[in-house]
Amino acid sequence: MINFKKLLENSKVKNYILSAHIGIEREAQRINASKKRLTKKAHPKTVASRDYNPYIQTDYAESQLEFITPITNSVEEAMNYLSAITKVALTNMDKDEVLWPLSMPPALPEDAVKIKVAKLSNRDDVAYRKYLSKVYGKRKQMISGIHFNFSFGEDLIKALHEASDGSRSLRDFSDEMYMKVARGYVRYHWIMTYLFGAAPTHYDNFFDDPTAKLDEPIRSIRNSKYGYRNLERLDVDFSNIESYVTDIENLVEDDHLVAEKEYYNCVRIKGAGKLRDILNNGISYLEFRNLDVNPFELTGVSTRQLHFMQLLILWLLFRDENPEDTQGLGNEINDAVALENPNEKTAYYNEGKYILNEIEALGHELELEFQNTTYFKRAKKVLDHPEETLAARMLQSDPDWFELAEKMTAKFIEPDYLLNGFEDFELSTQIFIYDAIRRGIMFEIVDRTDNFIRLTSNGVDEYVRNGNMTSHDTLISMQIMENKVVTKRILAKNGFSVAGGFEFEDLSTALLSYGKFEGRKIVIKPKSTNMGLGITILPANFTREEYQQALAIAFNEDVDVLVEYFFEGTEYRFFVVGGKCTAVCKRVGAHVVGDGASSVRELVEVKNASSWRGTGYDAPLKKIELGEIELLNLQARGIAQGFDYVPAKGENVILRENSNLSTGGDSINVTDEIHASFKEIAQDASKHLESKVCGLDIIIQDINEPAAADNHIVVEANFNPMMHMHVFPAEGASIRVTDDVLDLLYPGTRIS
Amino acid sequence: MINFKKLLENSKVKNYILSAHIGIEREAQRINASKKRLTKKAHPKTVASRDYNPYIQTDYAESQLEFITPITNSVEEAMNYLSAITKVALTNMDKDEVLWPLSMPPALPEDAVKIKVAKLSNRDDVAYRKYLSKVYGKRKQMISGIHFNFSFGEDLIKALHEASDGSRSLRDFSDEMYMKVARGYVRYHWIMTYLFGAAPTHYDNFFDDPTAKLDEPIRSIRNSKYGYRNLERLDVDFSNIESYVTDIENLVEDDHLVAEKEYYNCVRIKGAGKLRDILNNGISYLEFRNLDVNPFELTGVSTRQLHFMQLLILWLLFRDENPEDTQGLGNEINDAVALENPNEKTAYYNEGKYILNEIEALGHELELEFQNTTYFKRAKKVLDHPEETLAARMLQSDPDWFELAEKMTAKFIEPDYLLNGFEDFELSTQIFIYDAIRRGIMFEIVDRTDNFIRLTSNGVDEYVRNGNMTSHDTLISMQIMENKVVTKRILAKNGFSVAGGFEFEDLSTALLSYGKFEGRKIVIKPKSTNMGLGITILPANFTREEYQQALAIAFNEDVDVLVEYFFEGTEYRFFVVGGKCTAVCKRVGAHVVGDGASSVRELVEVKNASSWRGTGYDAPLKKIELGEIELLNLQARGIAQGFDYVPAKGENVILRENSNLSTGGDSINVTDEIHASFKEIAQDASKHLESKVCGLDIIIQDINEPAAADNHIVVEANFNPMMHMHVFPAEGASIRVTDDVLDLLYPGTRIS
Repeated sequence: MINFKKLLENSKVKNYILSAHIGIEREAQRINASKKRLTKKAHPKTVASRDYNPYIQTDYAESQLEFITPITNSVEEAMNYLSAITKVALTNMDKDEVLWPLSMPPALPEDAVKIKVAKLSNRDDVAYRKYLSKVYGKRKQMISGIHFNFSFGEDLIKALHEASDGSRSLRDFSDEMYMKVARGYVRYHWIMTYLFGAAPTHYDNFFDDPTAKLDEPIRSIRNSKYGYRNLERLDVDFSNIESYVTDIENLVEDDHLVAEKEYYNCVRIKGAGKLRDILNNGISYLEFRNLDVNPFELTGVSTRQLHFMQLLILWLLFRDENPEDTQGLGNEINDAVALENPNEKTAYYNEGKYILNEIEALGHELELEFQNTTYFKRAKKVLDHPEETLAARMLQSDPDWFELAEKMTAKFIEPDYLLNGFEDFELSTQIFIYDAIRRGIMFEIVDRTDNFIRLTSNGVDEYVRNGNMTSHDTLISMQIMENKVVTKRILAKNGFSVAGGFEFEDLSTALLSYGKFEGRKIVIKPKSTNMGLGITILPANFTREEYQQALAIAFNEDVDVLVEYFFEGTEYRFFVVGGKCTAVCKRVGAHVVGDGASSVRELVEVKNASSWRGTGYDAPLKKIELGEIELLNLQARGIAQGFDYVPAKGENVILRENSNLSTGGDSINVTDEIHASFKEIAQDASKHLESKVCGLDIIIQDINEPAAADNHIVVEANFNPMMHMHVFPAEGASIRVTDDVLDLLYPGTRIS
Repeated sequence: MINFKKLLENSKVKNYILSAHIGIEREAQRINASKKRLTKKAHPKTVASRDYNPYIQTDYAESQLEFITPITNSVEEAMNYLSAITKVALTNMDKDEVLWPLSMPPALPEDAVKIKVAKLSNRDDVAYRKYLSKVYGKRKQMISGIHFNFSFGEDLIKALHEASDGSRSLRDFSDEMYMKVARGYVRYHWIMTYLFGAAPTHYDNFFDDPTAKLDEPIRSIRNSKYGYRNLERLDVDFSNIESYVTDIENLVEDDHLVAEKEYYNCVRIKGAGKLRDILNNGISYLEFRNLDVNPFELTGVSTRQLHFMQLLILWLLFRDENPEDTQGLGNEINDAVALENPNEKTAYYNEGKYILNEIEALGHELELEFQNTTYFKRAKKVLDHPEETLAARMLQSDPDWFELAEKMTAKFIEPDYLLNGFEDFELSTQIFIYDAIRRGIMFEIVDRTDNFIRLTSNGVDEYVRNGNMTSHDTLISMQIMENKVVTKRILAKNGFSVAGGFEFEDLSTALLSYGKFEGRKIVIKPKSTNMGLGITILPANFTREEYQQALAIAFNEDVDVLVEYFFEGTEYRFFVVGGKCTAVCKRVGAHVVGDGASSVRELVEVKNASSWRGTGYDAPLKKIELGEIELLNLQARGIAQGFDYVPAKGENVILRENSNLSTGGDSINVTDEIHASFKEIAQDASKHLESKVCGLDIIIQDINEPAAADNHIVVEANFNPMMHMHVFPAEGASIRVTDDVLDLLYPGTRIS
């Protein structure tokens, strides 16, 4: 026996105490909320096929979804994935469907035949489900739960091993860590049933016997003898890895089980491959299987619950083991606790007190902060107040779960442009990740603040930054686009219409060229424009003095200054990916359209109420401000009443001259309206700039006329074009350009 | 007849008056300077074959180089190319060879058979040279000259055409511009012979008759009847393009000429393809052929001369033509002027005065500034002072031209790391362009201040910025390397040794991790390092307070902070291109090595005297400063005498702790010494970072030992690594990594 507690004395160990890998699986029935029953619809078709989807699978029944997070490095990270996967699933289900928030299924068909087993492609999977239906009945299979996959961080295992006497190999040492936790969990997992049991009652036709019914609510049907478990009590020896493997193999050998995986317990020992391989390769992780679905969380489980779980696991590792404890004892206690009345104190109150005190002491020793912020503090209270257990709270509130599910879902999926769990990413990346999940493309965060992710599909890795900076574009193409002068020269050289003008390296040469610009409206700007600093637009009748002043302002910002002829027209953004222009947006300045009754102020309020309008970078559009600039603009247009002015029905009142989205401007999808010849120009330009993903800004006089040399100019090209303006335009249909980028990276993965 | 002068009244015209395209060709004999004769060596082998070299060709003789600039947009630009090409040629010739600075060849062999005709691959070229040898004799072919290719800018032609009555098409109009200039040039080109004639005498065996000899010096043998010209006087009508073409064709038809190109005159009308094609396609440019090589310029011609030429051309375009002027008259005057005594006033003084006054008046009208800064002012003086003509000055100074050529060359090619004409580019790009010229790869400047160029070879364009940012690298690879955390994560994930450590997003979490670092030397730095700001290195015995202070400093610079274990060793820079590590440099801080007699101050002076050490970014290494930091460093090492300390022979005195080249550090080539396993690590790392060109920084304990997980760490990767530290190392052989990048872009173009 290793004395793990003693190893804690080594100061290094504490540093890595929270180092862990964590994954979550969550099962949930799809229901038809309005009809208040299980859905009859097939698995969602707009997510990647369950044949290879790593995130969204079907569990036992066709109506029963299973969400699987990747292995992450923290509870928070795993929860982020679970939130995002849940959002993708919810927004790809039939519009009548939501997820059933309970472990226990809603009313089941009277005839079990009507319970549709998942229509999977893999024959073995189907055969196994048929076997389960036969042996356990279909009804119990409809229960859903949460599985928590946990492994210790390599850092922690290594630190503990280094602190040990070294008599065991690192692998043996690690295996013993897991076996000790598993043994302890079987012994004490009843505390989870007490705290988080959330299956107090059942609905119609849960039992095979149509007249059978549980008279009183209990803590957890799922975790009780009425739940889904092996028909007979199977004893497996958790003393060590050999005994565990041999026992289960014998159970299969003696036909007690049809397969190793048919052995159910609150915790499962996992390795890579078959059970026996664990003996060679060691234990990879533990799968904790007894958490009921938390009906008060749309994801079915909370971060606080899982943090508590992690604390419990740590205590199980470091506690003093009582050699007289048997596996049977733990399961017996759990069975008893599961059957208790949720509103009554548990019969194992003292042991509960002991567990929580032990955890608390360990927490102090480890100097862990999260004991205050996690469920821990609450757990102590709930032990004394059974009416605060999940099961009891369910009985107290006793809502219409269909209605509640619908309400919680509506809240969870709003606003539609944010991806739950990844709300801190820039919008385009959130949309991009959403689409990757939908396609079943694995993704991993490489650097969160930098929007840097790695995608993997079919064994091909692709790094992506900001949603469309990829390996498909070249370094030099980016350098070309970053330098507006170079972009313009290359485009001009290849016959594109660009703004006429000249570049100057000193004020005196620029002044000498006055005659080149005299009498024409011009734009004077520093070569490297930075937030519009140093740019002046001069009207056609500008004087030499004005010219000189504007030059001086521009030269103040850069050593090179451009003077260009102003081109009248409207600016459009063309999104070109893989040589194809897939979206075109017009950008217009902040404005309102009159209804003949409301004032400008009221019209702005209505417009600002849209969920797509925010105040920062966290919404696709920005709220229109009613500030000084907007007021001056109205006055300059002869609207003396200002914001109180009531425009006529259909009257367009412009509040901002500039078309930036950041000052309340609108993006308007014109992809289908614009003359195709302009899209061809954008496509050709992107080729000449050697670009795979680019956003081209083109000023056009009339988008209904075919492109001609003198009716448009290509202004600039962006190597990392904003995508959300196309996905969430203020007007017109949404174009999911993020999907186009994914097509570029992983051809053939599009789900139409 | 178009009245061009009248068109000048249109204000637009003046704006484009200097708009032009300019190219230069320069011929020069290679000489053996020490043996004071023509070289006997073949055409240089370390420049691209003359079969396809666009810059460096052979003229008539094997010893006679021809430099050709691309078509540029100004005299300055063409001169820049000519300077660079000249530098490349000079530094690739035999070390005994320099260029003969005169038009007239040095002493020729008594037996003309010994004059080696260029050994070209093209049979037609060889046959034509044989024909010329036979008809004109080999000796006259040995004369060298300057050809000035000129065309008007499209802007200017268009502006003039728009100001005209529109009775002619743009092309006809343009052709008439060129024919008028050509007619005028034939009439007045004698002024160039007067001012710039630079062939007053000849050397042994110039005439076929061994006893023949010019008794008195003249202005220009090359431009006189003794020069290289058609055997008979051939009259060609320059009135219009049709008469010009027909006349030359008739001369060929009637066997006066073997080919159209055998027609010699001071100016040639050029189109694309055959002469007759000009009638369909118009005139492309004029080739002015009568400039002698200016012996006082290593490039054979000065910017001022060519500016004067451009002024003359403009005058010829706008002047009033005298219909009585004939082509014959101009050539007769020139013949006479060429034969005049250089020290005497020309017989055509009055016409000279007229020409210069006319040019001056035009210059005023056009408000051209360059009349003051070009040769123009001087030309007026030289008309009155024949002793200041080039020919007269040559006679006055009468130096040993072999010696002078050697001296001028030595001056011109120093310092070796700069490329003449492109000295304002960053060093790596200068070296890169040098190598491109050497390989005969065409290059064009796209943006000078941004070091942005376009290369073309075999029809393939490649844009390059800063000498190694190319289309071969991907945008995401650059993004990976720009983010040190991402780089490290990817390297660590793929099994590379990297600095151990952690990233923190807030001060409190970082403080809690104190125990992870206690007792170890650590580096605390902001995630995005900017010029070393916010970085602290703490010794192993650091306190919690010091840790907190250093964190605060780092968090002041960035929202993310890295704390890493310090790894003891020396930093090496690995240059990896196309998966292959071709160079490794060690960087060491500013230091001197004692000689047992000199003080530190004196040793630094010696070191600083190297031409490779400068004060800015314009030299590969920086001069060591003797400032406060250096003094403190000496004192910290117990050297109380400071800079007056006299170190023992071989004693290494370190003046700077940091190894940056920018503070006087040295780059030391260790490519061959370092254990190959480290190069493999660099190569593998570059592959995992998906990079084609990268500079990897690796800290190594001992470069003689094979790489092992614990004896090195990969620190960072640079997507635009400095190249000159390998090409011009302070110690060790030069490795031309620029050539490796060119291999990547244009495989098979390497010249060994």
